[in-house]
Amino acid sequence: MHRYRTHTCGALRASDVGETARLSGWCHRIRDHGGVLFVDLRDHYGLTQVVVDPDSPAFKLAETVRAEWVIRVDGRVRLRPAGTENPDLPTGQVEMYATEIEVLGPAAELPLPVFGDVEYPEETRLRYRFLDLRREKLHKNIMTRGAIIDAMRAKMKGQGFFEFQTPILTASSPEGARDFLVPSRLHPGKFYALPQAPQQYKQLIMMSGFDRYFQIAPCFRDEDPRADRLPGEFYQLDLEMSFVEQEDIFAAVEPVITGVFEAFADGKPVTKNWLRIPYAVSMQKYGTDKPDLRNPIEMQDVSEHFRGSGFKVFARLLEDEKNRVWAIPGTGGGSRAFCDRMNSWAQGEGQPGLGYIMWRKRARNPLEQVLFELGESLPLTLGAIFGDHETRARAKKGFWDYAQERDERLPGLTDQESEEVLRRIDAHIAQGDLEQVNLLRSAYFGEYEAAGPIAKNLGHERTEQLRQQLNLKDGDAAFFVAGNPEKFVKFAGAARTKVGEELKLVDFDRFELAWIVDFPFYEWNEDEKKVDFSHNPFSMPQGGLEALNGQDPLTIKAFQYDIACNGYEIASGGIRNHRPEAMVKAFELAGYDEATVQERFGGMYRAFQYGAPPHGGMAAGVDRIVMLLCGVTNLREISIFPMNQQAQDILMGAPNEASPKQLRELHIRTNLPEK
Amino acid sequence: MHRYRTHTCGALRASDVGETARLSGWCHRIRDHGGVLFVDLRDHYGLTQVVVDPDSPAFKLAETVRAEWVIRVDGRVRLRPAGTENPDLPTGQVEMYATEIEVLGPAAELPLPVFGDVEYPEETRLRYRFLDLRREKLHKNIMTRGAIIDAMRAKMKGQGFFEFQTPILTASSPEGARDFLVPSRLHPGKFYALPQAPQQYKQLIMMSGFDRYFQIAPCFRDEDPRADRLPGEFYQLDLEMSFVEQEDIFAAVEPVITGVFEAFADGKPVTKNWLRIPYAVSMQKYGTDKPDLRNPIEMQDVSEHFRGSGFKVFARLLEDEKNRVWAIPGTGGGSRAFCDRMNSWAQGEGQPGLGYIMWRKRARNPLEQVLFELGESLPLTLGAIFGDHETRARAKKGFWDYAQERDERLPGLTDQESEEVLRRIDAHIAQGDLEQVNLLRSAYFGEYEAAGPIAKNLGHERTEQLRQQLNLKDGDAAFFVAGNPEKFVKFAGAARTKVGEELKLVDFDRFELAWIVDFPFYEWNEDEKKVDFSHNPFSMPQGGLEALNGQDPLTIKAFQYDIACNGYEIASGGIRNHRPEAMVKAFELAGYDEATVQERFGGMYRAFQYGAPPHGGMAAGVDRIVMLLCGVTNLREISIFPMNQQAQDILMGAPNEASPKQLRELHIRTNLPEK
Repeated sequence: MHRYRTHTCGALRASDVGETARLSGWCHRIRDHGGVLFVDLRDHYGLTQVVVDPDSPAFKLAETVRAEWVIRVDGRVRLRPAGTENPDLPTGQVEMYATEIEVLGPAAELPLPVFGDVEYPEETRLRYRFLDLRREKLHKNIMTRGAIIDAMRAKMKGQGFFEFQTPILTASSPEGARDFLVPSRLHPGKFYALPQAPQQYKQLIMMSGFDRYFQIAPCFRDEDPRADRLPGEFYQLDLEMSFVEQEDIFAAVEPVITGVFEAFADGKPVTKNWLRIPYAVSMQKYGTDKPDLRNPIEMQDVSEHFRGSGFKVFARLLEDEKNRVWAIPGTGGGSRAFCDRMNSWAQGEGQPGLGYIMWRKRARNPLEQVLFELGESLPLTLGAIFGDHETRARAKKGFWDYAQERDERLPGLTDQESEEVLRRIDAHIAQGDLEQVNLLRSAYFGEYEAAGPIAKNLGHERTEQLRQQLNLKDGDAAFFVAGNPEKFVKFAGAARTKVGEELKLVDFDRFELAWIVDFPFYEWNEDEKKVDFSHNPFSMPQGGLEALNGQDPLTIKAFQYDIACNGYEIASGGIRNHRPEAMVKAFELAGYDEATVQERFGGMYRAFQYGAPPHGGMAAGVDRIVMLLCGVTNLREISIFPMNQQAQDILMGAPNEASPKQLRELHIRTNLPEK
Repeated sequence: MHRYRTHTCGALRASDVGETARLSGWCHRIRDHGGVLFVDLRDHYGLTQVVVDPDSPAFKLAETVRAEWVIRVDGRVRLRPAGTENPDLPTGQVEMYATEIEVLGPAAELPLPVFGDVEYPEETRLRYRFLDLRREKLHKNIMTRGAIIDAMRAKMKGQGFFEFQTPILTASSPEGARDFLVPSRLHPGKFYALPQAPQQYKQLIMMSGFDRYFQIAPCFRDEDPRADRLPGEFYQLDLEMSFVEQEDIFAAVEPVITGVFEAFADGKPVTKNWLRIPYAVSMQKYGTDKPDLRNPIEMQDVSEHFRGSGFKVFARLLEDEKNRVWAIPGTGGGSRAFCDRMNSWAQGEGQPGLGYIMWRKRARNPLEQVLFELGESLPLTLGAIFGDHETRARAKKGFWDYAQERDERLPGLTDQESEEVLRRIDAHIAQGDLEQVNLLRSAYFGEYEAAGPIAKNLGHERTEQLRQQLNLKDGDAAFFVAGNPEKFVKFAGAARTKVGEELKLVDFDRFELAWIVDFPFYEWNEDEKKVDFSHNPFSMPQGGLEALNGQDPLTIKAFQYDIACNGYEIASGGIRNHRPEAMVKAFELAGYDEATVQERFGGMYRAFQYGAPPHGGMAAGVDRIVMLLCGVTNLREISIFPMNQQAQDILMGAPNEASPKQLRELHIRTNLPEK
């Protein structure tokens, strides 16, 4: 018999009844039922109920055993008594009657129980990660992570990609984030850097004639803590292809990502036909380049409605041509309470507030009701209303009565003003301009009334035009952000998310994937008053060398793309600039001369001179994808030994002091901040 | 049509003849045959012959194209003219007649040609690695590396192992080698360390209740350059299992390693039933714990033959009981020239020389020949020789004549001495001790004569005893190393290798795998005059806590094992010490108190307190296995972007200076050696 087990704790079935078996595992839960001990013995594979009664020679020892002790149990497999089976457990038909127990690893009093779902402080969970990892949910997440990576790998190979390992001790390269440095012992005063991504290496692999590269690559960035990024290190599904255009990358990647999501989505729908959203459109519609498309809200530019309007705050802002007014339509948000809540939320976000308009479908007055019933179609109705003088007079009276009744909600007009409205309606009808008629009609007689200070100042007509553009209905609201979009866009995006979530417009149980394309190649660095690469300096500018030579750099787009999923950027890539002259020009525009390029990207620059194929690729964030598929929002729930938010591994005690000998060997001294 | 290609360069076949196709690739070789250009267009997948003649509109551009330019070619697929097919090439039936060419990436004058097999200096190869990697052999090695890792992964999963990624930014842990350190920006004066191996993490994974871990794990050691180790980083197939004994590890690992070797051995035989060689035996037989079993030579302790003998150098050495004499049998090495060559080699290795004895099968004198023919069996022959006085007298005369004839090769005896020999033979016959008779007979009358200064001083009888122990024959030799085995063992092992290789005893075309077991747990540190862990402090000592408490530490063996293959250690592992009290005791014997253990291995120590399962594992050197299977002896031939032997990446320029800002942020200063 094996020293530790004949079966795992998930293996025994009714067909094993009568057999002698040996199990080893952790005591998950121990119950004493009238002197009979029930031990749920747990290992990675499952749980088996072990029974020890006072007649068993194992009883005395069994009484001393506590939760999370590791024990070996010998015994006979028997059916559970009728009525005590556990159908939720694969081993639930049987139990083991223990005849011998050996303690393999006792456990001290637990700082964190394994059985049960009670939340524990992160500090405790990380310090006792080995206990935390035994807990069902985290244990399962880690296994799911492994399975997702396996699936990625299998699908990448299915697409003809080969896996390579690129160096981890490499050169510092200014790719945006801060490098982790590693002092060299053999080369005093010099440092290796850990790769922020294998960007240069994967391009070199293409220039080395390998055709389709991928890697589940560890990447390192010394960045300040962020909720959606693990401190220190993270994993990318990194890929690169030769002789391709953007469409080829999309065609290769979509089935991989869709396939992985479908395999682990637990039945939730996954986008089949991915939208391709230009960066500028995404920013305008969603206020972000990583939109959550589960949220149906699309923002719209409504500047024209406010330009020169009675709502002076916005009208004045719009006198600066950089400024815009965006609307966030909020279906179902047309209640004072909700709008006030949004306003307060915005103030909590450091904004002066969040302007809004609410729409109600106005109850029809009796006249309108009658007229409406004459016919559904607008022309007919309008004919009935405005067709003859008598009807018009009645309409006017009806409107007037209505205005009287609801003074505070529909700003009243004088007789004269009413006449003017009707005159204009008449004129439009005469010109056959039913759209204008419709607008005026719904402004003054129609279905919707608008509320809120903005509406009051903006006036009926503009408010109704706005409503129609946003396609809002009874009980809806619109929220407004105004100013320079570059400055307000982030807040606008957050407001869109907030409105969508608060109004329960977001269908959380799905995965919405889309390509974000046409990223700008450069951006303006206001601090240094210069043009900078907006993202990846190695991307191919759209229009190539010609665009670099002839176009305003800030209008050049790149063959650069992201994948957005449910509000996260889960991948990013580009077609690379494989022509050395274009590379030099691209860097020149960002203020780096050729010598600097040669110095900083020597290997790449050299490789470009010796037959570089067109190529492009992508990198997907493994951790984020796993996080999404596990349905958690903290990366530490899907990483086996994460650091805390202060970039410390409190299980292993990293970072830690180095010995003077180590520092001497590495030719460095510490340079501590003054206290 | 695709922008770059309708087919890869390995795709076109006779069935494509008549089609229009588009290829992209590198110009591998360009030949001008009487004004017609032949371009071998190469990509990752293969080679296609492109033909351009002066009638083609592509001709003018084609004339400008040079080796390693990347071009796109459109053209018609046609059969090669009869007799010019290339059966070695999958595309060898066809060629492409080019009608259009586009240069996608021109190439400057090559510092390293891709076509051809000329050797280039390592400096050039590493600086232009992207060219070197395009060369057939290296390109293939890198692909084989990937395939081997895929196979390892598949086989590990087939054995029920799951893959995990353990942290790369972690804590320094004194596991033997020197750590690479990474200064922490957020924690001034503190450092992360890169893992020398995921040893502690994998044990923590077992304590976290996962049952079978593996990882293709990057590992980092800041060691001085060695031929069989990559500077900086290398990869391990790392694994760990719970609830196992040593036999379970062997059972899980053997099929993985054998399977991988068989899949990539290119038909060479691979060990099916692995030997298990105790460490002490391996050191004695092979002079190393990583024997090359393709070399059939097994060394033997022959001290007893020299003790008190006429060969005073060894006899005196043996008066110190620490000293031994080992023999390296050299089948077929019995020529003066070879023995002298070995002696010179040893001197080149810093040894005083290499003593030897050569054996020749002595030609029989006529008398012996007759007697021999009387019967094959020794007793009969002996009877004939020694049975009666007359025969004995004749034998004596025969011996004497023989001795006279061959004076310089068989040391002569006086009459009296001859009498003494015969007297002793008589006595042995009388006692029926045929073994002794045999020995004396072959020493003086027998088949073998020995030559060399050692034989002369050692005397016939001892020399023949030695020959018989070593089972040497005509034309063989034995080489001797003497002294303290701890000091000479390394040289002895090297001499064994040298002798085996020089005598062509080694069958290079096979893979010989074996377990080396029972490593000593501790060793004596002569510098610090203390007991040290000889290898892995986390191993379980054989005999457990009891052995630690009661036994001389230097005699304790560990459940610790290596895999040796063809002279390389390709894997190393152990059953772990999972009992905290045993861990504390084990460290105590090596001079570390409990507080130190807690400080240095806090995570592990803590985990041991809370239900640790018995567990064990192994780590196999991926790079070395790939190296063996690719049939190369330098790890840089199987690593895509290796550093040079000075631990520099001369392609990327690492290590490099850091900026003052970076150093400031990391709270360090450089501390350069004085010039």
